[in-house]
Amino acid sequence: MTEAFDAVDVIRTKRDRGRLSPAQIDWVVDAYTRGVVAEEQMAALAMAIFLNGMDRAEIARWTTAMIASGERMDFSGLARPTADKHSTGGVGDKITLPLAPLVAVFGVAVPQLSGRGLGHTGGTLDKLEAIPGWRAALTNAEVMAQLAEVGAVICAAGSGLAPADKKLYALRDTTATVESIPLIASSIMSKKIAEGTGSLVLDVKVGSGAFMKDLARARELAETMVALGTDAGVATVALLTEMSTPLGRTVGNALEVRESVEVLAGGGPPDVVELTVALAREMLAAAGQPDADPAAALADGRAMDVWRAMIAAQDGDPDAPLPVAEHTEDVRADADGVLTGLDAYRVGLASWRLGAGRARKEDPVQAVAGIELHAKPGEPVRAGQPLMTLHTATPERFARAREALAGAVAIEPGAAPEAGGVILDRVAP
Amino acid sequence: MTEAFDAVDVIRTKRDRGRLSPAQIDWVVDAYTRGVVAEEQMAALAMAIFLNGMDRAEIARWTTAMIASGERMDFSGLARPTADKHSTGGVGDKITLPLAPLVAVFGVAVPQLSGRGLGHTGGTLDKLEAIPGWRAALTNAEVMAQLAEVGAVICAAGSGLAPADKKLYALRDTTATVESIPLIASSIMSKKIAEGTGSLVLDVKVGSGAFMKDLARARELAETMVALGTDAGVATVALLTEMSTPLGRTVGNALEVRESVEVLAGGGPPDVVELTVALAREMLAAAGQPDADPAAALADGRAMDVWRAMIAAQDGDPDAPLPVAEHTEDVRADADGVLTGLDAYRVGLASWRLGAGRARKEDPVQAVAGIELHAKPGEPVRAGQPLMTLHTATPERFARAREALAGAVAIEPGAAPEAGGVILDRVAP
Repeated sequence: MTEAFDAVDVIRTKRDRGRLSPAQIDWVVDAYTRGVVAEEQMAALAMAIFLNGMDRAEIARWTTAMIASGERMDFSGLARPTADKHSTGGVGDKITLPLAPLVAVFGVAVPQLSGRGLGHTGGTLDKLEAIPGWRAALTNAEVMAQLAEVGAVICAAGSGLAPADKKLYALRDTTATVESIPLIASSIMSKKIAEGTGSLVLDVKVGSGAFMKDLARARELAETMVALGTDAGVATVALLTEMSTPLGRTVGNALEVRESVEVLAGGGPPDVVELTVALAREMLAAAGQPDADPAAALADGRAMDVWRAMIAAQDGDPDAPLPVAEHTEDVRADADGVLTGLDAYRVGLASWRLGAGRARKEDPVQAVAGIELHAKPGEPVRAGQPLMTLHTATPERFARAREALAGAVAIEPGAAPEAGGVILDRVAP
Repeated sequence: MTEAFDAVDVIRTKRDRGRLSPAQIDWVVDAYTRGVVAEEQMAALAMAIFLNGMDRAEIARWTTAMIASGERMDFSGLARPTADKHSTGGVGDKITLPLAPLVAVFGVAVPQLSGRGLGHTGGTLDKLEAIPGWRAALTNAEVMAQLAEVGAVICAAGSGLAPADKKLYALRDTTATVESIPLIASSIMSKKIAEGTGSLVLDVKVGSGAFMKDLARARELAETMVALGTDAGVATVALLTEMSTPLGRTVGNALEVRESVEVLAGGGPPDVVELTVALAREMLAAAGQPDADPAAALADGRAMDVWRAMIAAQDGDPDAPLPVAEHTEDVRADADGVLTGLDAYRVGLASWRLGAGRARKEDPVQAVAGIELHAKPGEPVRAGQPLMTLHTATPERFARAREALAGAVAIEPGAAPEAGGVILDRVAP
């Protein structure tokens, strides 16, 4: 078969700061999926994109080409609107767990196709697998049936969606081409658009525990993704949210499920509740229900009912006790004062080293590993008080987890500063 | 085995415009040779180097690491000094053929390890293989014996020299990372230093038929290579030479051998003679003979004697007739005037399409294919006069060769302009 383009010409175009034509983009993404463009050629192109960028039209075409590389799901047969949420990943970010059943309470279907954790951020599927019996892998038919009956599903994304992205994502991980706004935006949005959701709310994290360390870059990513979704006919908005300190008071798998259940029971940490309710409002508004009251559905147990049905539908036992770590150690305050800093990246790294995350994608994770936080920034602490409790099944991991925490905690004398909210900004089309 | 570095960290350093440390460079070149750093990782690093550069110290270390990846030759056992020449490649550049025997006349050994052509520039080995019986592959022992007996050898570089460069060179070709001064300079100099020559003269081509299209970039490349050679203890100088129009009056394999023999017989085109003598003077001066007279050795047949011995030592028959193309076609002038332009790149491309070059490195070349030039820039021409004759064994190639020549020729009314020399500048340590 004669190819329409030569990979070297396409790479050279971007290397020399040119604009890739729509036909070049369609060809290179398709040819890469077919194996005609070699891994090393895509690596060179990805680095050229990383360093020289792509404009909005190029990113849109790249996204479309990745969608076209695989199948698309279609929820138009459901009798209800669909809404989905995507988070760019953070530490202690268990929001998907209470959010999906909460939105489903209002008759909006939530098809939440999720991933596993890699690096210091946790994975939604890893968390839910702490629940005895629960299974992540569903067929497309099972997803449709569960959406029709329960209204919410959190499961593994099938391999048929955007296979070009799957291949490119693995390549970027080994070639230092991850943190590129065009490549991040097209990766996320190709999967979400292929998934077939009618509306989408993006939670773009900002801070030490996030990919985007500063607000300007996070806003650029959010604006890029909102434009991509809107152009593809998906009602899309984004919230920019705080990730310089962990969300809630737990980091890890079983520990985060426990906290999620607390939120579903009407309690839980204020920051988790604030963000869950804010995201639910956005999803419900995008799905045509601007006046819905998600806070009430947490308080009166309706969200908990959907949660229990959702877990049970995937063979999980919502009443089974969650596993608990055999080994724990406390980290204590070394001074009196106010906790002024608790670094999300370092806490995430420590939790990862305790066994909550994986170094290679084939590694297992510990359900029990993680960190409980006994104080959050803005709270007064006394010298010797436990600031956190480390959990693991393998106590030889404590030493390296403590190393990761060096410099993670700041305690200063004086009064507590004004606590800021979790939500920093909102980006709409 | 535990690796000293992580490839992703090394790539990230250069991606973020950092300086690679000596230890990082040693590791990444060695690990790439061992296959621990994957092709796609080196591709991403090569693109980051292409776009963000390397400073002189990084280039020097990179060169040293590539030399260390393989064996080094050692000519210290010879009773004579050694001198070598490297050309960055051009159209009609047959200079190596008369130059090696010419320098050997003066008792300086010339170990000319050469390559084959790829793209529009010809390869020295392809040219010599037009001579019946001649063989390019010699063992190290044969090279040493021929240098001791004849004084000059032109042969294929063994696979033991700088294997890291061999691997990287093939990768750069498919990933659009060829035209980078740090990568070109380290590639050339690693091979030449590993080859063990005592002195080296570089012929850096400038113009449409060369990698370097403008004088400033060519000078930067020359200065970089001269510094690398000098630091490695090799007496190195460079000439910057004209390559906007082909050298001499022939392009192709057998055709260029024929012209080289004319030069060795004391004739040949003035530009080929000028450059051959200038490079010979530089090599002889670097080898300790600043007062040698190479022009005399061309005129009196001493260079021809060494040529004949050199060809015969490699089983070639210096008296055998060279092969001649069965098919020829003329390209004629379309106006009266002065030939003011004859584009080297287009003529090289046409010769390549006639069969003188190869598209893939495993392709054969035609000994007979190529182009004879009947007029050179600065010469008067008449409408209808043959400007060039195209040669090939496969006449279906004429059409695409003529396409390549569109716009290659410029004829203007008026008097001939002052003809410039071939040598544009000289770069010494």
